[in-house]
This record gives sequence, C-alpha cells and structure tokens, in this order.
Amino acid sequence: MNQIKIFSPATVANVSCGFDVLGFCLDTVGDEMIIRKTVEKGIKITKIDGFDLPLETKKNVAGVAALAIYEDAKPDCGFEIEIYKKIKPGSGIGSSSASASGVVFAINELLGKPYNKTQLSDFAMKGEAVASGSEHADNIAPGIFGGFTLVKSNQPLKILELPTPSNLYATLIHPQIEVKTAEARNILPKNIPMQDAITQWSNVGSLVHALHTNDYPLLGEALQDVIVEPHRSKLIPHYNEVKKAAISNGALGSGISGSGPSIFSLSEGIETAKKVEQAIQEVYTKTGIEFYTFTSKINAEGIKILSSE
Amino acid sequence: MNQIKIFSPATVANVSCGFDVLGFCLDTVGDEMIIRKTVEKGIKITKIDGFDLPLETKKNVAGVAALAIYEDAKPDCGFEIEIYKKIKPGSGIGSSSASASGVVFAINELLGKPYNKTQLSDFAMKGEAVASGSEHADNIAPGIFGGFTLVKSNQPLKILELPTPSNLYATLIHPQIEVKTAEARNILPKNIPMQDAITQWSNVGSLVHALHTNDYPLLGEALQDVIVEPHRSKLIPHYNEVKKAAISNGALGSGISGSGPSIFSLSEGIETAKKVEQAIQEVYTKTGIEFYTFTSKINAEGIKILSSE
Repeated sequence: MNQIKIFSPATVANVSCGFDVLGFCLDTVGDEMIIRKTVEKGIKITKIDGFDLPLETKKNVAGVAALAIYEDAKPDCGFEIEIYKKIKPGSGIGSSSASASGVVFAINELLGKPYNKTQLSDFAMKGEAVASGSEHADNIAPGIFGGFTLVKSNQPLKILELPTPSNLYATLIHPQIEVKTAEARNILPKNIPMQDAITQWSNVGSLVHALHTNDYPLLGEALQDVIVEPHRSKLIPHYNEVKKAAISNGALGSGISGSGPSIFSLSEGIETAKKVEQAIQEVYTKTGIEFYTFTSKINAEGIKILSSE
Repeated sequence: MNQIKIFSPATVANVSCGFDVLGFCLDTVGDEMIIRKTVEKGIKITKIDGFDLPLETKKNVAGVAALAIYEDAKPDCGFEIEIYKKIKPGSGIGSSSASASGVVFAINELLGKPYNKTQLSDFAMKGEAVASGSEHADNIAPGIFGGFTLVKSNQPLKILELPTPSNLYATLIHPQIEVKTAEARNILPKNIPMQDAITQWSNVGSLVHALHTNDYPLLGEALQDVIVEPHRSKLIPHYNEVKKAAISNGALGSGISGSGPSIFSLSEGIETAKKVEQAIQEVYTKTGIEFYTFTSKINAEGIKILSSE
C-alpha cells in the first residue's frame, strides 16, 4: 500500500456530564485526507483544501501528529499529506482532532499497522496540543476508537470503549460564531462545589450504565451538566432556547459540544433526531446568526478507509 | 404471614471514587431482626440485643423507618420489632442503614409487598436521617437492592442496580476507634479542585464500565479517591499501611468504608481476599489497637428472609 484516502469524522467531547473524559463519534461530517508514501524522507503537507491553515509541518496539527508517529516508527520513506478540510476550525466538533487522528491512522495503515489505537491516540494528542495548548484525548479517542469513549487517564493514556446503542442519533447545530478553546477553558472555575461534583459523577456513572443497558431514558437523565454548562453556555447565543426546543421535540438531552459553540442533542431514532433538527433550525433562523445543522448516526467504527492503492 | 425473621447485611458506601453515590452489599456480617404483626396499632421495639440503643420508637433508626412505611401504608394492625444487632454502630459499614432497611423490608413482606425497592429505600432513608442528620441512600440502596448500586439522584430517589462480578470478594477491617459520621463529614472541603473532580468522575465511569465487563484490573484502577481519602484517612490510624499491605498482597484496591473507620479491600477470588485479610491483621496486631476483620462475598441479593410464619 502506497497511498490511502481516509474519512476522519467529527466528534463530540464532554457529552454534558463527562467534561474532559467522555466523547462520541459522528458519521455525517468529517475531513478527508490522502496520505502517500514518498521516497524523500520527512513529512510534507502538499495541499489543504477548504480552510486557510498553515502548510508548514511543525505549525500544522496534522503535521505535528504525523511527525510524532513518523519519528517513533523511523520508516525508510517519507509521507505527503493532502487535507480536504470539511470540519470548520473552532466549531467545537473536533476539527483539529480529526486532522491529527486521521493522519496518524493513515500512516499506521501505510506502515502495516505496527501501533494499537491507544498508541495512535498518543501520537494524535501531540498534534491536538498545537491547537488547544494542551494534550487532550477527549476528541481524539472517539475518532480513533469510534462510538462512545471514556478517557480513564491521560498519563499513561488509557481509553475505554463504551457500548453504542444502535438506535442513537445526534443532531448538531453550529452557530457561525467563534469561541476559542482557550477562552472557553479560562471561563471555567478552578474550584467547584463538592455537591455539584457529586451530581456530575453520579451522572457519569449513570451514563455509562445507560450505554451498557440500552436505557435511552436514563441516558437522557444523565445528560446533565451542572459544572461547565452554566459558564460556557453564556458564550453561545440562544443556547437555552435551542436546548428547550430540542428536548420539547423529543431529544433525550442536549449540551455543549466540546468547548462550543456547537450544540449537540441525542435522540432515539432518526425520525426524532430529524424533528429535533427542524425545531433547532426554527429557533436559529429567527436570530439572524448564520448556522448549519446536521443529523448523524453515532459512528461506532470511527475513522474509515475510503480507498487505498 | 404474621412474623418474619430477616438478615440485614452490612454495606460499604462510597467505594473510593463514588462518594455519596456508590455502594455494595456484604454477606458475612449483618443484623438479624424479627418483626411481628400485633393487634395493637403502632410500632413498638420490644428488644434490642447486642448494643445499647434507644428502645423509644421515634429515637431509634429502625423505629423511625418503620413509622415511615407504617404511616404510608396505614394497615389494620401494628408491628413489634426485635433487633439482634451485630453491626457495631459507628463502624462505617452501614450499621444504622441495616436497621432502617431491614425493618422496612420486613414490614413490606408482612403487608404482602405493596412497595417496590425504591419506595422501601425512601422509607429507610427517614430512619437513616436519625443517625446521620441527613437522608442518604448510599448504604440503604445496596442493602435493599443487593450487589453494587449507584444513587442517580436523591430527589426523586433513583437507584441503579449495577452488575456484580461473581468472583469478587471484600475484606473489611474495623479498627475499634470511633469516627462520628458528622465529624467525618465536617472534615471535608465544601469546594474541590476541578482537576480532582475530573479524575473522580473518570474513575466512577471506569468502575461502572468495569462492573459491566467483568474487568477486574480496571476495577482496581478505578478504586482511587483523590477527593475524600486525603482528608478522612487522617482519622484512621495506620490507614496507609493497611492499604499498602492489602494491595501488595493482591487486592484490587482499598478504601475507606463509608465515613470510616472501617477499611474495605476488594479482591478477585476468595483465596486472595483471605490472604489480604491476614496481611491486614498483621499490620494491625502490631498497633495495639483492638480490631476485627472479616472477608465476604459481594451479596448480590441484599436483605434475606431467614424464616417466616
């Protein structure tokens, strides 16, 4: 195999109760990348389509992630990367993670799969750090493992693959405003009330139990966030209206996707998810703020190979 | 049925990472109670064997719990209660909860089971509040439901039954010192660092996943407590030595049982649990502090009927 084309999906981190540890993988939206072996050694980004991002390897999320796996593997070749960027940077659905995860997944395939998924996540986190300033796996893990994931620990990196209920669908809205990850992190308190933390870890436990037991109503009840949402929702115009519209139209729950501004909702069944999408569109159409929405199955597979030669 | 004799087991609340929400049920140690229908209306405690506790209904944990179910059911009879108390009050293994849970379980049986387990837990919590000053279900729930439980919410009360790995054993040591529940609560901070809270809810999620997947090593990794243990362990002499001895002898993990002073360890297999018990005994024998230890299967059933007539 000398060349591979992959689809690296968007992801939702935090999932209301699981700030910094939970995430799930989307299916409808994602970056496409072509990675090709080259005789010349090193990592070269030859094309970025879609958004204006640095081509210089060490300044690019995908470049830095590619270097991490490349320098570890020390192969007898180089790689060139074409990025067809579909996930808007700063949208809150794992744009930088998709680039970082996709490239390490692809290089691993081209090298004959010497690394496992946890190792790939570790390499991808090096790239993610370029965008967010620190290494986080909460968007990386669902992209590489697929489905729902829980980051048990960062050092050493340990990722748990949670079950994915088969009839679960996500609806996303991305209001076209900018929320910087760093800003979204700075708005959070360093200390939190014990009582709120207890509520949060009870919900994390309940959510994991709900995924294992296919208990959709419990999943909805667990989608609560008393820690982060009260602060970050202020950065997202009409957040509460969107959430209210989603839930009153049958969504199990809604929350901020990653550090926002995207808002996710989860629903049982595609019909409900589509109805939720329409209700959210109605809320946002009135605001005059540009936005887009989409509905997606939870992607249990993660990154996909589109073609190889 | 006019009379019932039951076994109401000791329980372990918190389970390291799950302060105020997680608990599991023991099997070896528990109170016995005889509850009998009487023509005379009302609740009467006729005998308390083992420890010096108030016979007056409204001052007794079991009495208050019994009144709660009794006043709701309004039956055409009364009940008298004999308590054979085996769990030492203040030991940290749910002594007051066992009395409260046992009596409501028994009265429900004598009434023909009109209430479900969540309703029984609600009644028992009224009794528990007499001992601890507030209504908590973290020891009540594992006694009534059996196995591992997670208190999803207190209002309304919602309890999740988690799976119990079949080869899991607990080893308990009760150092004969007094730690008052109120004191153990007051020592805790009202606010906690966000980073510690994240670690805690990652561990709660991991523990629930470990129970669902029979993953004993992961269960051990999840038995961490960065929130409560650093404070409460100071109230328990030689706590760290006990923990170290348990883990170096094969225990998956150790932690404070409830608000202490009892310390629990969990092990895969009874042989390991017994070896852990011996190692802990060796640590404590040297201290000159009185103590007792026991090893128990996790009791998936909860409260048991010993006889009825």
